Amino acid sequence: MTKAPGRYFEDYEVGQKFGSGTVTVTAEKIKAFAREFDPQPFHLDEEAARDTFFHGLAASGWHTAAMTMRLFVDSEIKPDGGMIGAGGSDLTWPRPVRPGDVLHLESEVTELRPSRTRPEIGIMKMRLTTYNQANDPVQIASPTLIVPRRPH
Amino acid sequence: MTKAPGRYFEDYEVGQKFGSGTVTVTAEKIKAFAREFDPQPFHLDEEAARDTFFHGLAASGWHTAAMTMRLFVDSEIKPDGGMIGAGGSDLTWPRPVRPGDVLHLESEVTELRPSRTRPEIGIMKMRLTTYNQANDPVQIASPTLIVPRRPH
Repeated sequence: MTKAPGRYFEDYEVGQKFGSGTVTVTAEKIKAFAREFDPQPFHLDEEAARDTFFHGLAASGWHTAAMTMRLFVDSEIKPDGGMIGAGGSDLTWPRPVRPGDVLHLESEVTELRPSRTRPEIGIMKMRLTTYNQANDPVQIASPTLIVPRRPH
Repeated sequence: MTKAPGRYFEDYEVGQKFGSGTVTVTAEKIKAFAREFDPQPFHLDEEAARDTFFHGLAASGWHTAAMTMRLFVDSEIKPDGGMIGAGGSDLTWPRPVRPGDVLHLESEVTELRPSRTRPEIGIMKMRLTTYNQANDPVQIASPTLIVPRRPH
């Protein structure tokens, strides 16, 4: 059995949009991620978070980035060979992610260009906006992906 | 008991550098992160990873970003009120992170400016380079932090 191929560079176009499923954020998940990767009071404990910049428990921005990646991987974008990130510029977090938030992702192709040095790949830039259940953006990212060109 | 205050905006200077401890990457940690946040063959299974872009098991870039945050939080930079990220631009991964890698971080202050709109905070840009045990960079990031000004 061989896996069906994903999309090639030639299958994308600028302006193309992809939706996603959802992920529900819980206090326990926020704290578990923070204990391992970002152990600061505003990510670890409701009480300790109250008098901080965040005025209450909030997810680490890197947790939001990781949850966004999961929504992105599970979405319909599916480049052949997988999601290979060359980088992610302009990552911002316009508002905190809170316990109980339900996140979803909207991704849009913003730029497509063949690689100058490697004829077998193309470069695809995207804009990824992660929203909460109120449709307020909680993360904006502009990753660059490496996408294979369709074999001749 | 009150916690000793951290550093204020006035305590940093452009060019100032901070080191870090280390984190050891294992195959099990790579796979556990990937199962939750980035379930793609090259992050999940040695055998399946062999014929991919990465030619073997590699950590998700978002796992590397999260491990970097842990090194950063545990380092001596310690702004008062915690590490508040306004964003992270130009995140790139020059080479894969592999099982057995031992990572450390070097961070440098690249820009300091008072906020134009909020007199109680300053904006600090940094360059964070995450290295493996061979001192080859595995991630470069340029986050912007919000740092409190020293109270009068």
